[in-house]
Amino acid sequence: MCPVHFSRRVERLRPSSIREMMAIAKQLGTEGVTVYELNMGQPDIEGIPVFSEAITERVKDRHCYYSPFWGENFLRESYAKYLNHYFDRRGVKHLIVEKENVIVTVGASQALCNTFLALCDPGDEILCIEPFFPVYPGFLGVAEGILRTVPTYAEEDFVLPPFERLEMYITPRTRGILFNSPNNPSGKIFTSKEVTRLAKLALKYDLWIIADEVYREMIFGENEAFSLLQVDLSPDEMEKFKHRAIVIDSASKSFALTGTRIGFVVSRPEIIEKIALINAHTIASVSDVIQYGVAKAYEHVLEDPMFFQEMRKTYRERLHAALESVKEFFPGVIAPRPDGAFYLMLQFPEVDDISEYAMFLLKNFKLDNETVAIAPAAGFYQTPGRGKNEVRLALVVDPEKIRRAIFLMRKAWDEFADFLKSQGRGFSPKDNRLGGKSKSDREEVNY
Amino acid sequence: MCPVHFSRRVERLRPSSIREMMAIAKQLGTEGVTVYELNMGQPDIEGIPVFSEAITERVKDRHCYYSPFWGENFLRESYAKYLNHYFDRRGVKHLIVEKENVIVTVGASQALCNTFLALCDPGDEILCIEPFFPVYPGFLGVAEGILRTVPTYAEEDFVLPPFERLEMYITPRTRGILFNSPNNPSGKIFTSKEVTRLAKLALKYDLWIIADEVYREMIFGENEAFSLLQVDLSPDEMEKFKHRAIVIDSASKSFALTGTRIGFVVSRPEIIEKIALINAHTIASVSDVIQYGVAKAYEHVLEDPMFFQEMRKTYRERLHAALESVKEFFPGVIAPRPDGAFYLMLQFPEVDDISEYAMFLLKNFKLDNETVAIAPAAGFYQTPGRGKNEVRLALVVDPEKIRRAIFLMRKAWDEFADFLKSQGRGFSPKDNRLGGKSKSDREEVNY
Repeated sequence: MCPVHFSRRVERLRPSSIREMMAIAKQLGTEGVTVYELNMGQPDIEGIPVFSEAITERVKDRHCYYSPFWGENFLRESYAKYLNHYFDRRGVKHLIVEKENVIVTVGASQALCNTFLALCDPGDEILCIEPFFPVYPGFLGVAEGILRTVPTYAEEDFVLPPFERLEMYITPRTRGILFNSPNNPSGKIFTSKEVTRLAKLALKYDLWIIADEVYREMIFGENEAFSLLQVDLSPDEMEKFKHRAIVIDSASKSFALTGTRIGFVVSRPEIIEKIALINAHTIASVSDVIQYGVAKAYEHVLEDPMFFQEMRKTYRERLHAALESVKEFFPGVIAPRPDGAFYLMLQFPEVDDISEYAMFLLKNFKLDNETVAIAPAAGFYQTPGRGKNEVRLALVVDPEKIRRAIFLMRKAWDEFADFLKSQGRGFSPKDNRLGGKSKSDREEVNY
Repeated sequence: MCPVHFSRRVERLRPSSIREMMAIAKQLGTEGVTVYELNMGQPDIEGIPVFSEAITERVKDRHCYYSPFWGENFLRESYAKYLNHYFDRRGVKHLIVEKENVIVTVGASQALCNTFLALCDPGDEILCIEPFFPVYPGFLGVAEGILRTVPTYAEEDFVLPPFERLEMYITPRTRGILFNSPNNPSGKIFTSKEVTRLAKLALKYDLWIIADEVYREMIFGENEAFSLLQVDLSPDEMEKFKHRAIVIDSASKSFALTGTRIGFVVSRPEIIEKIALINAHTIASVSDVIQYGVAKAYEHVLEDPMFFQEMRKTYRERLHAALESVKEFFPGVIAPRPDGAFYLMLQFPEVDDISEYAMFLLKNFKLDNETVAIAPAAGFYQTPGRGKNEVRLALVVDPEKIRRAIFLMRKAWDEFADFLKSQGRGFSPKDNRLGGKSKSDREEVNY
């Protein structure tokens, strides 16, 4: 092989460890092992039926065409209607969204990446609330931007720091603020006060503010997510805010259609126009067939308000099963109850690096030819050392499987402890370390 | 509106004029005007039937999943088989392609853009043979690279300059060479000598060499395209060349599936791995449903070698109709016969700027409520002044419509001349300027 060199940007990118776990899990699958894949936000539930029906109908006419850079108007319209309806049904004030405010992308991934490509020059910084979806730094890295993070802590309910503390993170290169609510991985829902605080920070420092709201419909409790589009400001502030606010969304989680790859950016038309230019010079357009199917999904939920209620019920049952099983099998593990999204974070007190255990599960453990894939949480943090004793479970399988998976995790944990002992290393989880008390009521497994 | 600023890269991007024409044409369509859309490479023919059948079958199972970053193995395998088979059927020596050499992208657009993102730092240059597909500078511009061009001329059959002339275009920032064969817009097929010359240039200056081969199957005459994968070199040279060669392909033109958005990069696994990292951080993955349908299309043509023969026949009939009509209605226009792809370039002698005529067709002309959209060719060139008296016709409708369109173009031309006269401006095409002799036999309308 001759020495070749690639771009600096690609040399800086790293594959997400979650996807590495996925590759090992898939390999085990082909070897006949049953792997409970709690490592990825890939629900096992069936996609919304109307999608399949619409696609089948659409491909009967055997013509397919390039779409406009900004997506098909029928999808932009259906999505805008859905979004307005979402707020109106809850009786909350919001910015009204029309098709001119919407651009269709290849999932929320490309929505974020192309937004960064439109906003950031190399070296520009985006301030992101930690913990965060691990691919954010890479999405920004394609534009050669740099992610800076504001840490928040489970012990403090992931509460956003006060304005003055947030200001300390702003540098001359800061171009925008990014947050994800409901949050992957923590399940945190940013309150109206917190979202408004971020909006005011953006106004004061003339920053973009980007809200990743792909889990809007996934709510465990009574509190709905507070959208960036709901921020209430004075007319003067609003005029400026409107031109700075960007919302990211996706059909992947809402309709269990992860593989379809349809996402959205919602913003002012002059911003949409710039992102459309990036679309034009990256993908040209999004698959017209798929756009048709997804438009029908959004139209469907306008007429069937129970659709998302049913989905919430499904995920609530899964969360209940997970919390109960954690209480039973890992009584000393801290499991903060999430408010939204569909993940559960587990904190293993006094463990140095949980990733070895996650790998042990896949590589050294099997019970009745079954094991579990989980996501070590270090990738959700950028602050050095954070997340090393945490894992994220994706609640993407049914309650029975979740219970079985957590039971298997415990069995593996005991074997893992023995294995470490045999090497004369580390802690012994059997020896009471997992029996410790969790730090606050909130962190108790109290669902 | 408050003043906002965007990234430098997006401020440099310009929408392709072809797509601007498309927007006007679509608008006229909604107003009930019949527009013969010869402005875009968007065939009117039906997509391959097996695609629709496969998609219908696939969505019956209502699960859809994230694909690997590099695409589904079944599609990478089908495509690799198709490509090897393409060469083997013709009995030509070629680099053997396996699934590890293939990555799936959102069309050839993203294949090119993500390749540039993986190879080029800001300010790096790619040397491209002119004329070229107008979006190339923008694909490269997303990576903040710069396209430099080597002009070739219709009057010289678009022959590639000799090695020593090509060398003069290399600068310290040159990172790669890009060419498109069969060429959009010229229809030129680069000969084995020309492709080999480019390969040797890449070897001498340690450059990437990228061949856009999306029109491989669209051949008008006897000469097949000579693929970059066919270059014959000494074993030492080959060892180096292999790690520098990148082929771009797409299902869009081959199967009349432009709207599906499936493309490919073919290269060494270590290069594919880098492009996969870019995929991971831009789109995450390509739609799994669509990949399934396109895999079936590639499998189908392995068993039905007549499929592409039939398609060639269709385009040959269209070209014949176009050349005959040009001879009849525009006897003084130069129309070099293309060897491949599905476009026809028309050069209007002594016209200063043909784009005004193209716009006149859409905005000021109608006959029986019909008109024609064409692509002014300036966008296919970067050398100042080139292409200003040329238009490109895409042969994407049936012969009867092509004849009607060219007849309408002539009627519009006469009105356009009268319009210019009435303004006391410019040439008068009726007054013999279009009756001039074309410059060589080759440029005669002699099909």
